[in-house]
Amino acid sequence: MSPSRIPDGEERGWIVPIGGAEDKENGAKILQRFLDLCGGDGADIVVIPTASRMPDTGDRYEKLFSELGANRVESMDFDTRRDCFEPNRIQRIEQASGIFFTGGNQLRISTMLGGTPIAQAIRAQNARGVAVGGTSAGASILSEHMIAFGTEGSSPRADSVRLAPGLGLTNRVVIDQHFRQRDRLGRLVAALAYNPFAIGIGLDEDTAAFIGPDNTIEVEGSGSVTVVDADGLQFSSMHMVGEDEPVCLLGLGVHILTKGATFNLNTRKASAGSLAVSKSG
Amino acid sequence: MSPSRIPDGEERGWIVPIGGAEDKENGAKILQRFLDLCGGDGADIVVIPTASRMPDTGDRYEKLFSELGANRVESMDFDTRRDCFEPNRIQRIEQASGIFFTGGNQLRISTMLGGTPIAQAIRAQNARGVAVGGTSAGASILSEHMIAFGTEGSSPRADSVRLAPGLGLTNRVVIDQHFRQRDRLGRLVAALAYNPFAIGIGLDEDTAAFIGPDNTIEVEGSGSVTVVDADGLQFSSMHMVGEDEPVCLLGLGVHILTKGATFNLNTRKASAGSLAVSKSG
Repeated sequence: MSPSRIPDGEERGWIVPIGGAEDKENGAKILQRFLDLCGGDGADIVVIPTASRMPDTGDRYEKLFSELGANRVESMDFDTRRDCFEPNRIQRIEQASGIFFTGGNQLRISTMLGGTPIAQAIRAQNARGVAVGGTSAGASILSEHMIAFGTEGSSPRADSVRLAPGLGLTNRVVIDQHFRQRDRLGRLVAALAYNPFAIGIGLDEDTAAFIGPDNTIEVEGSGSVTVVDADGLQFSSMHMVGEDEPVCLLGLGVHILTKGATFNLNTRKASAGSLAVSKSG
Repeated sequence: MSPSRIPDGEERGWIVPIGGAEDKENGAKILQRFLDLCGGDGADIVVIPTASRMPDTGDRYEKLFSELGANRVESMDFDTRRDCFEPNRIQRIEQASGIFFTGGNQLRISTMLGGTPIAQAIRAQNARGVAVGGTSAGASILSEHMIAFGTEGSSPRADSVRLAPGLGLTNRVVIDQHFRQRDRLGRLVAALAYNPFAIGIGLDEDTAAFIGPDNTIEVEGSGSVTVVDADGLQFSSMHMVGEDEPVCLLGLGVHILTKGATFNLNTRKASAGSLAVSKSG
């Protein structure tokens, strides 16, 4: 599964993974910026709370986006895979100018939506310019290779992480969330050790990576985005160690981005962006 | 304070920081290897339990090294700075073929021994070939710039870490311990952000960096040694952020070494060492 083909003359919509626990009361900068990408006061947002087991998660985000100024917000939950084949739901997705996944358990989203017309509709919408975002579990689901679960700890072990196919809006990144708060570097690095082509994105809480149509990551929020790039990997022992043994990885590149800094997924180049400007200002 | 000058025709002794909780019962590989560097069954080891508040720490390591085959082991505690000026103690240090610091609080060692003839004697001994090791707090104390305390979390904040002068056997590294177990990447990276000249060494529990006279790090034990190299640092925002704000750092190099892999502090080159050999074998 690769990302849906972008129609001629159009550009992919923004992909917005958020590290969880985003601010909802003091300006809600991340959610506001997401809303602006969906058209601001003209936005029509579908919230998918399927990852969550709490009955009011959808309502909560409906209310939040409404208060931030969205024209229309609707929560759409999926209880069965059959729900993901209903024409009126698919049509609703096709009308949306933004789609947002709440937190919870990312495997609930992937087992419910994976391979259904709803998943296809979301992918097609993103390919033709609609912004798709999500927080916590809703962030993990966005990429092709999704961290399903894993163990904590700074240094990687062969069994630190289990991957599953995600929604596949991009295959460039592996996303992890609650990054600083839950000590997840090891499992992100382990995911890259399996196949270093992807770039690891570790999102702190209240922090988002806004991945633009040109594959440049911009940071929003109060924490940092840790980019782990295995492009220059000299050596990995992943193929030769036992499950609970530590993995040797030589030549990883790490960038810790805060608001203002950027990273381009195509060129793999980090930039201090506006931070460098304010430095000399 | 730089490391003591190495006398003509001699070479510096090994420096052996251990990440804490080293195995003491199933082969005690790290302690055995340290003992071997001190002369094996001819070894004369002084154990310094000053970091610890537990009265039996010194006795425990005395017993351990004796059982592993040391010729002579003596625990030498320091309760006051005056103790660090006693000629018979200084003489005892000058006889030792190995010196070992136990765990506890590294600030107890630095406040008690710092700047005294005992510290000078240990530094001089290491410069003329005597191995000096330590576990946990005893690992942190070995380098010039010591992490005194800090906060947990994968991504660095300006106030993640506080440094203090250590024993100064090497000024090439900043050492952190219990690395995987206590989520200390952020504070190690913050320490490097202050001044990127040093190389960060994060030691997992039951894992040691054996730093040879030629400044090559070899790994011993069941975990990994995370080397953070800021030599290629493109940008740091450390000088412009508030205390509790995240720090932007672009261009860090990270190597995760397991037993068999090496890193040279002079050339800043990592090697898979014997792991690469067993790969093709």
